[in-house]
Amino acid sequence: MDPKLGRMTLKEWVAIKSDSVQPMPRFRQELFRMMAVAADTLQHLGARVTSVDMGSQQLPDGQSLPIPPVILAELGNDPTKGTVCFYGHLDVQPADQGDGWLTDPYVLTEVDGKLYGRGATDNKGPVLAWINAVSAFRALEQDLPVNIKFIIEGMEEAGSVALEELVEKEKNRFFSGVDYIVISDNLWISQRKPAITYGTRGNSYFTVEVKCRDQDFHSGTFGGILHEPMADLVALLGSLVDSSGHILVPGIYDEVAPLTEEEINTYKAIHLDLEEYRNSSRVEKFLFDTKEEILMHLWRYPSLSIHGIEGAFDEPGAKTVIPGQVIGKFSIRLVPHMNVSVVEKQVTQHLEDVFSKRNSSNKMVVSMTLGLHPWIANINDTQYLAAKRAIRTVFGTEPDMIRDGSTIPIAKMFQEIVHKSVVLIPLGAVDDGEHSQNEKINRWNYIEGTKLFAAFFLEMAQLH
Amino acid sequence: MDPKLGRMTLKEWVAIKSDSVQPMPRFRQELFRMMAVAADTLQHLGARVTSVDMGSQQLPDGQSLPIPPVILAELGNDPTKGTVCFYGHLDVQPADQGDGWLTDPYVLTEVDGKLYGRGATDNKGPVLAWINAVSAFRALEQDLPVNIKFIIEGMEEAGSVALEELVEKEKNRFFSGVDYIVISDNLWISQRKPAITYGTRGNSYFTVEVKCRDQDFHSGTFGGILHEPMADLVALLGSLVDSSGHILVPGIYDEVAPLTEEEINTYKAIHLDLEEYRNSSRVEKFLFDTKEEILMHLWRYPSLSIHGIEGAFDEPGAKTVIPGQVIGKFSIRLVPHMNVSVVEKQVTQHLEDVFSKRNSSNKMVVSMTLGLHPWIANINDTQYLAAKRAIRTVFGTEPDMIRDGSTIPIAKMFQEIVHKSVVLIPLGAVDDGEHSQNEKINRWNYIEGTKLFAAFFLEMAQLH
Repeated sequence: MDPKLGRMTLKEWVAIKSDSVQPMPRFRQELFRMMAVAADTLQHLGARVTSVDMGSQQLPDGQSLPIPPVILAELGNDPTKGTVCFYGHLDVQPADQGDGWLTDPYVLTEVDGKLYGRGATDNKGPVLAWINAVSAFRALEQDLPVNIKFIIEGMEEAGSVALEELVEKEKNRFFSGVDYIVISDNLWISQRKPAITYGTRGNSYFTVEVKCRDQDFHSGTFGGILHEPMADLVALLGSLVDSSGHILVPGIYDEVAPLTEEEINTYKAIHLDLEEYRNSSRVEKFLFDTKEEILMHLWRYPSLSIHGIEGAFDEPGAKTVIPGQVIGKFSIRLVPHMNVSVVEKQVTQHLEDVFSKRNSSNKMVVSMTLGLHPWIANINDTQYLAAKRAIRTVFGTEPDMIRDGSTIPIAKMFQEIVHKSVVLIPLGAVDDGEHSQNEKINRWNYIEGTKLFAAFFLEMAQLH
Repeated sequence: MDPKLGRMTLKEWVAIKSDSVQPMPRFRQELFRMMAVAADTLQHLGARVTSVDMGSQQLPDGQSLPIPPVILAELGNDPTKGTVCFYGHLDVQPADQGDGWLTDPYVLTEVDGKLYGRGATDNKGPVLAWINAVSAFRALEQDLPVNIKFIIEGMEEAGSVALEELVEKEKNRFFSGVDYIVISDNLWISQRKPAITYGTRGNSYFTVEVKCRDQDFHSGTFGGILHEPMADLVALLGSLVDSSGHILVPGIYDEVAPLTEEEINTYKAIHLDLEEYRNSSRVEKFLFDTKEEILMHLWRYPSLSIHGIEGAFDEPGAKTVIPGQVIGKFSIRLVPHMNVSVVEKQVTQHLEDVFSKRNSSNKMVVSMTLGLHPWIANINDTQYLAAKRAIRTVFGTEPDMIRDGSTIPIAKMFQEIVHKSVVLIPLGAVDDGEHSQNEKINRWNYIEGTKLFAAFFLEMAQLH
């Protein structure tokens, strides 16, 4: 194998602070560097690489930031072979060592067979596993069993800004020869048993701003005579979900697909050791006590999470401030057949109702800043069968057939625009902690995942 | 006047980032530098100066930080004269230009007669006005009409850590010859009319921590099956105060002093142009429509403010995180005759009741991190009369006799430990914005305030 690839490359890639969430120019520069490094790696592999300029992004505050290029790459063009396109992303969630990381999030660090680092599992590790698999055929001087295409972006964690337009534009060009699309951007539901994913939830991300004035107040000088924006905001956020996790926005469950007996049976067939799951999650108690309820509330029912507040006092210590203007942030994970626009209307209406009852003199503005559709696939497609066979070869077991509670909007997008079969083949274990502190990928998953992709190429060649 | 004093010194003092609220070593270093610079200035004035070592402070996270020294200084020791002790503080609230400051908070900047900068009015400007007044007698080679003492600290914004023990220890030494204590650490209630303050509210600062685990979650992977700490916290914070500003903690109003007809009349006598007040505050509408209600809810009724949340997502952008552990912060401004320990019990009990009804598997911990008593004085003391006469001399008007909604716990502390008359003579205008962005002191207030203190020395000499 090329000595430039493998774990050393993952270390180099993790070291690049390609954070797409925090809209600061320094992170944007890192994103551009990340995409250039990846393009270089693919060129080194022998691929024809195009880095597509994606223009720039207008932020709500008026700031304009450049969008990192999307990489389109091709390797092999044999009309007798199937063509598999791999989608991945190289941007990451924010990470700050002060938030509770035990190691520097941007220094890949191996501890007990676990490779810790931001992006290790989401999604730099899996992208490299696919590249490593291709590289293995090269190193053995074997022809690739399939034609390979890559579409690699740098804005996934920020909602894949502008990607949809590119896919639309390339529908009859780059994607015309593509038969199958593979994504590896989620996790297994166990620590050791591989899985194939056939559905994901969507996501509607909301901000609700409450403003008295654009300056904070001293709580001694003004406490007692103001409609305090934080009191309004806390009431608004408190009206969204009850203590059992039930969303309180009227109408929100109307379009959720009815539950069938057949569907319940698919959950029963899945192996999930609740005890192990709870231990690996380090959660004392979940909202539900049975495997089936837990899987359904992660996959087929919507959920609402409150993420935080911008503009309030968020540091250690005791500041006696009345914030003048605050922005609450929450999101709803959508499931088939919920509609993004309908949810936007329902949430906005609900918050306006709650706010108007308070008779507050503050101004409230509700915005949906991201609206990502849920996705569900046909599990009898050729590549689902190939993936199952590859898993049997490498892992000696049947995969869990699962859905994912996370949002991978490009799955839905590829399905709708390109009309190709999409499969999600995760490599990471359930406890990888993507998006949280101490994200990691196991060394074993990284290496077996590389083998799995190589075996998948061979199975695809047979089944196609 | 000494060329080292005056506005240039205020500029130098504001440039020192003496933030006592954020417990970082770099701010602590600045605090020590601030106290050293002030000791130097007082020595330069001819005072005998002692910088008292205050030891160190143990933070909740285990960190230990040194406490800046308290300055005790004396100027004059004539037994035939009265002795006035001036209390001030040189630490400041946090300030960050990114939070909405129009100028660098640590560069004193004059715009239209306003001197903008963190600490300009709270409390560096008033401390320097007092020093300038003393300096004026020196420059004119006149004897000081009174003996002057200074007690200057650097931890006021963090609750005057360890000051009480020092005052207790110095009760029969430094304070034995003191007749009167003057504090100038609050504001007028108008832009142009001076005031004397005879009471302040106290403050109980609370944190309520809700913890699932010490690591965040991804809202896709875990949303729907968790008791989310933010949902618990928002419900807890939402249970504290209603939309009319009424505190919902049972029993909290029990010890509030009953309102008498006589007291109502004192509020009626105060000039407060509500229209001007609202305009200068840039608040569209207050909770109350009459002058009397507003003054009473700032001075003689408790208030509750929610300050913010530590541990949640607080940056711009859209992070899909479920915070694993969050700390809500709020405080209650206390009034006579509320008791800090009783309030602590009431709040803790209330939050425990609300939390237990949620059946959450998370852990909740309520802490009162600061408990500061309210204070009220006898307005017929000699120095109240002297202050009134000095105001007539310098400003040609009667002062507003006011109370302050803010907490100046050392007023209560001096009264209880030293048993001396305490007066608050504010210098800053109502719109100075202490604790908020764009804090300032008017050039006019700073200069007339210096004159007021000089006139006060002369009046004290006559009345004593």
